[in-house]
Amino acid sequence: MTTDDMTPQQLAEASSAAMHERDHCAQAMGMSIDEVKPGYARLSMKIRKDMLNGHAISHGGCMFTLCDTAFAHSCNTYNRVTVASGCSIDYLAPGFEGDTLIATSVERSRSGRTGVYDVTLTNQRGETLALFRGKAYQIKGTVIPE
Amino acid sequence: MTTDDMTPQQLAEASSAAMHERDHCAQAMGMSIDEVKPGYARLSMKIRKDMLNGHAISHGGCMFTLCDTAFAHSCNTYNRVTVASGCSIDYLAPGFEGDTLIATSVERSRSGRTGVYDVTLTNQRGETLALFRGKAYQIKGTVIPE
Amino acid sequence: MTTDDMTPQQLAEASSAAMHERDHCAQAMGMSIDEVKPGYARLSMKIRKDMLNGHAISHGGCMFTLCDTAFAHSCNTYNRVTVASGCSIDYLAPGFEGDTLIATSVERSRSGRTGVYDVTLTNQRGETLALFRGKAYQIKGTVIPE
Amino acid sequence: MTTDDMTPQQLAEASSAAMHERDHCAQAMGMSIDEVKPGYARLSMKIRKDMLNGHAISHGGCMFTLCDTAFAHSCNTYNRVTVASGCSIDYLAPGFEGDTLIATSVERSRSGRTGVYDVTLTNQRGETLALFRGKAYQIKGTVIPE
Repeated sequence: MTTDDMTPQQLAEASSAAMHERDHCAQAMGMSIDEVKPGYARLSMKIRKDMLNGHAISHGGCMFTLCDTAFAHSCNTYNRVTVASGCSIDYLAPGFEGDTLIATSVERSRSGRTGVYDVTLTNQRGETLALFRGKAYQIKGTVIPE
Repeated sequence: MTTDDMTPQQLAEASSAAMHERDHCAQAMGMSIDEVKPGYARLSMKIRKDMLNGHAISHGGCMFTLCDTAFAHSCNTYNRVTVASGCSIDYLAPGFEGDTLIATSVERSRSGRTGVYDVTLTNQRGETLALFRGKAYQIKGTVIPE
Repeated sequence: MTTDDMTPQQLAEASSAAMHERDHCAQAMGMSIDEVKPGYARLSMKIRKDMLNGHAISHGGCMFTLCDTAFAHSCNTYNRVTVASGCSIDYLAPGFEGDTLIATSVERSRSGRTGVYDVTLTNQRGETLALFRGKAYQIKGTVIPE
Repeated sequence: MTTDDMTPQQLAEASSAAMHERDHCAQAMGMSIDEVKPGYARLSMKIRKDMLNGHAISHGGCMFTLCDTAFAHSCNTYNRVTVASGCSIDYLAPGFEGDTLIATSVERSRSGRTGVYDVTLTNQRGETLALFRGKAYQIKGTVIPE
């Protein structure tokens, strides 16, 4: 099946699978790609000891990295290589070792080569830990061969 | 020597050393604390294969995590436990496997319980890869016993 | 009626009305407070010639100011004086002279003394012109006497 | 004199003057363009009563608008029409009626069609009131005829 024969949902899943297979960082951190739709992605990850900071809570960088990866999956669902131009995160509550983090990215806008995506980070009890906003910029190339 | 006997520079170094010893994430990523002064920190890290994303460049989350850790060291130099309330990053250029990332955090303001810190991320050739801004919030407790 | 006798909705409306009466800037710009609920506000404003910038489109500062005011109304609906600690805005499309801007602010989180609010800015045709995120910080005092 | 005959400094000043002449908003707010160099601008403005918010301090939107205008002047100094794609502001201290606000914008990066500019907002006593960061995006056209 070529990309021309795919539905938007199939294209989203194929792009996401290809990205994840090559994403050494996401794999090393044990991220799971739980759901992908055009402009949408939900990922999860368990907080390991090597994701804690000097205050014995989840390192903000690890929370960010999960959000950033969810953002990347959601904005690459159209099989156009899209990178982050900038991101912001607001921390609301800490995560602890053994918690499961869930990052849900939704598309707020997409026009021309740019887009804005909002990611909500929760724990396994549904408590919101952080709010992330990512700005996407589409460059040349496709995620999977057309 | 108690913290009362320390100069600001000694206190900054002792707080930073204590944080780094407990920072499982920074250690797992191979971060080096290269210089610390009151309100200032410079860290470095080599980009490993497990820090690459699905586009074969340094994962934005790993670049962020180094910046965030430099920010944490700079805002905890006064031995008051200080956490991030929010951060933003703008990506200017990619990093590649084997590159050394250098994050330099400087204090832009500190008043009451809050502060703002600017981190510049460069590679080993001095090229700027990202600009990061962190908002710090001082909570209860000290980094090392008073 | 004292504030103790008010429903949350009555308190929200009374706080908002008191704020708007004293808000010289919002009045000078012709802002209208169209709807207020606890943690929510919707405002509108017509783009005048003195709100255009040197590129003949609505000045980003004026778009921001409407968003910021909607944010202020939404986070002050509990009759606790609450100010902005920081805000960000992403511009998606321009506004033009004579357009009506509509800013809708919703509460994303509120815990302790801080909160996060998302404002969507549209024009009269429902096109999204900007996305704004505000961080609120509750200080001492009440908006209306208790 | 055509733009080809101008030094970078002359071009910066000519672009800035042309922008300001057309900037109805900046003029209505009484902004003064105090210094312009390539990638740099310093503007000032007196806080009037119609720039106060419902808490009787300078409206965050007015502080933002001055910063945003300084940012616009600094990123349009090359005579290439450049607009804001996004901005963030962190408020450190309030301004009061009669205070003079001074916004100084410096270029942090400029590459391809994008740039990042940092604006520091102070009052007449040199106290920092806000830190602003603007992301610039170069579109088609020139500020003054080539």
